[in-house]
Amino acid sequence: MDKLVSLAKRRGFIFQSSEIYGGLNGCWDYGPMGVEMLNNLKHHWWRSMTYRPDVEGIDASILMHARVWEASGHVENFTDPMVDCRQCKSRFRVDTLLDELSVKKKKEVLRALVPGEYEGQLKDEAVLEAFEHLAGDPAKILAVIACPTCGNKGTFTEARKFNLMFKTFVGSVEDSSATVFLRPETAQGIFVNFQNVLVSSRQKIPFGIAQIGKAFRNEINTKNFLFRTREFEQMEMQFFVKPGTDDEWFAYWKEERMKWFRDLGMTEARLRWHRHPQEKLAHYAKGAFDIEYEFPFGWGEIEGIHNRTDYDLSRHQEFSKKSMEYYDEESKSRYVPYVIETSAGASRSFMAFLVDAYAEEEAPTGEGGTETRVVLKLHPRLAPMKVAVFPLVNRDGMPETAKKIEADLRPWFRVFYDESGAIGRRYRRQDEIGTPYCVTVDSQTLQDQTVTVRERDSMRQERVAVDRLKEYFTQLFL
Amino acid sequence: MDKLVSLAKRRGFIFQSSEIYGGLNGCWDYGPMGVEMLNNLKHHWWRSMTYRPDVEGIDASILMHARVWEASGHVENFTDPMVDCRQCKSRFRVDTLLDELSVKKKKEVLRALVPGEYEGQLKDEAVLEAFEHLAGDPAKILAVIACPTCGNKGTFTEARKFNLMFKTFVGSVEDSSATVFLRPETAQGIFVNFQNVLVSSRQKIPFGIAQIGKAFRNEINTKNFLFRTREFEQMEMQFFVKPGTDDEWFAYWKEERMKWFRDLGMTEARLRWHRHPQEKLAHYAKGAFDIEYEFPFGWGEIEGIHNRTDYDLSRHQEFSKKSMEYYDEESKSRYVPYVIETSAGASRSFMAFLVDAYAEEEAPTGEGGTETRVVLKLHPRLAPMKVAVFPLVNRDGMPETAKKIEADLRPWFRVFYDESGAIGRRYRRQDEIGTPYCVTVDSQTLQDQTVTVRERDSMRQERVAVDRLKEYFTQLFL
Repeated sequence: MDKLVSLAKRRGFIFQSSEIYGGLNGCWDYGPMGVEMLNNLKHHWWRSMTYRPDVEGIDASILMHARVWEASGHVENFTDPMVDCRQCKSRFRVDTLLDELSVKKKKEVLRALVPGEYEGQLKDEAVLEAFEHLAGDPAKILAVIACPTCGNKGTFTEARKFNLMFKTFVGSVEDSSATVFLRPETAQGIFVNFQNVLVSSRQKIPFGIAQIGKAFRNEINTKNFLFRTREFEQMEMQFFVKPGTDDEWFAYWKEERMKWFRDLGMTEARLRWHRHPQEKLAHYAKGAFDIEYEFPFGWGEIEGIHNRTDYDLSRHQEFSKKSMEYYDEESKSRYVPYVIETSAGASRSFMAFLVDAYAEEEAPTGEGGTETRVVLKLHPRLAPMKVAVFPLVNRDGMPETAKKIEADLRPWFRVFYDESGAIGRRYRRQDEIGTPYCVTVDSQTLQDQTVTVRERDSMRQERVAVDRLKEYFTQLFL
Repeated sequence: MDKLVSLAKRRGFIFQSSEIYGGLNGCWDYGPMGVEMLNNLKHHWWRSMTYRPDVEGIDASILMHARVWEASGHVENFTDPMVDCRQCKSRFRVDTLLDELSVKKKKEVLRALVPGEYEGQLKDEAVLEAFEHLAGDPAKILAVIACPTCGNKGTFTEARKFNLMFKTFVGSVEDSSATVFLRPETAQGIFVNFQNVLVSSRQKIPFGIAQIGKAFRNEINTKNFLFRTREFEQMEMQFFVKPGTDDEWFAYWKEERMKWFRDLGMTEARLRWHRHPQEKLAHYAKGAFDIEYEFPFGWGEIEGIHNRTDYDLSRHQEFSKKSMEYYDEESKSRYVPYVIETSAGASRSFMAFLVDAYAEEEAPTGEGGTETRVVLKLHPRLAPMKVAVFPLVNRDGMPETAKKIEADLRPWFRVFYDESGAIGRRYRRQDEIGTPYCVTVDSQTLQDQTVTVRERDSMRQERVAVDRLKEYFTQLFL
């Protein structure tokens, strides 16, 4: 993971946000290679979703009316419990406070709260298990542990709910009437536009609405590079169906979405389904499956497929007093549609594709030995740079010919021209950013107007006529 | 303008944000046609900028470290003067408060403040001119006018600066140490990443960094549809040059950017340059020109080209203590580069292209008469829907053939299939959303495998072989 983060910075995929000011926790910037790869990823998702006849796209604003989040349940439920220290005024998330206690401290807590039961030499695992059990009722623990900032005991307030939405104020007065939230998910922008899209697009149910956009969550603990951040991008699609057909569509979209990741070359063994157990389903959900990817830090969700029932549309109907019903001409009936949601993280998928593509291999050097090459085996559709063009040496008209090839290809593909360093070194530089093809102009080119095209993963080379290059690459990329 | 706003809603270009809750002032949502057209616009800008060898792209986060905005001058200078009413606690922007006074009230103010000079029957224009003169020192006026909310006079506080940046709080404590701002422009995300991009991309000066992204301004008065909004999207490029070459690059980019709008078909007579006079230049600027478009409500800026000098990089160097210098190998010298900025509004350009494309024309009906057709004459590259496919009638195998054509074209272009209503009505529906080509399957198709292709603006039709359609459209769109 450290290697990947380092490569990501060095080669212009991901920079820390506001790095020159020490960074902003939980926010990241996409560099030249990163933004191109992210755009390719989003564009590919957009095409596979909205170029279908039964899905429309939208782009709703990030700032939305505060009532949206009352109706969605976020104002009430999108919370973490927090406590303050009465002594020093520091504030903590309860679960983090308990998690970060050392085993020694946890043992002290057990002895204080359950005297007699945990005397003697307890094994660490037994301590952790017993503590975990106790943590179901955190108030007791909070009464006996010390504040990490000032060291005083018994100074914590009762736990209060802390909302994870970022709030800001519209207009010039900072009061509750002017409060708006940065959206914590893009889905609600789709629900509130259901009738607008339905009417303007003349779609009939079943149909979907897709959206790509930023969302924001005031996470107390950000972690794992792009995995848990405060600002992130989602690719969401809400598919509206007739109640009773929802299980069938749920199964359809589950299959489609897993296929999407596999078709883009993600390693099958690192993909799995995680089913949310019945008792842990979100308040709106009838069924929920996550697509998980095996990151270096463990399995993590990259997309969720949810049966949201008619919860969201019914709530918006109730709160806005606007009908969310659909008139079904076939069955001559009115109903509030059910929603099957496919909710992918663009930022998380980006990271999963990057992790999945990273490889270190032994490869032959030009001089007969071998060396380790770092290569990003990105799907050609995702690769930020499509083709690199090199003159073998900087003389005999080779740079001129190479530059002409570069200029001819440039309007069609992202192309990189490089004439510095040994040819092997130039290949390695392209391998590191995942460029699928390198074109080299050599002395033969000047005689027969052919070049070598080297494929990244196999490192195989073939000779292609210069005037066929555009067609050659078009077939490979489109 | 009203017609355009109505069309934009009816056909799915633009919806009011959170419309079912009464809307959120200054925020808009892009519907199915709108998001596709916006994406085409952004994609075309991105290609024309970053497919050049001398420009790299990035995508920086919207939330940035608060110090960024101290360095940029926004914390201090990005303000409007505001006053409160001491009686009823209402808050007003000073310029709006004065602007919204009726002529009668303005006359009263003149009489109160400059007794003797404005007696008798003053003409309205003379009142407005005299008042405008007086408004240079608003304190005097504020002392004599009534609060629009409670009607009391002399109750206004002194004017204070009100910052137009939206602020929010990161982490769980709402204090100044946790304050961050939603970026009011994308430019600073480029400046703080200057060294990161320079090093990772191996560019040499002169080179540029381009970015497309959302920005936010807490405008007190939003107006004119998408023109002045609180949430909007920018397409910005900062070009870093050697001091002394800045005038030359400024001229180059001025020409390039105006050409860009013209090449996309914007009416030349509705485009003009506005030069910022020397005394009104922003604190960082050496020179500034706006590209203005003539909207129905008057001329308005759609892009600014600015010579920002070394102001931004020098300020970030000063505030972050990180060097922003560039080592120039040719001249063996170090310098902080000058910056030529091209700053286009994606939302504003979108609106300008929509306005520019809107036309009402007399066109022949199928029955020999004429009728008014509404047509969006969008450049084919910008048009949200590229091709519509119709069966002439719903029988004789025509729908099947038309659906097959639709399916063949769909992976390549946004395609719409329509079999309902008279053919003339179907053409009109496509004209309204600017679809450049309509393909009709008729009885001749079933005999010779040709279809009619009808061009939107000329309404000319030609017969094209079905198996040539993909190639035919590829040539027209790519």
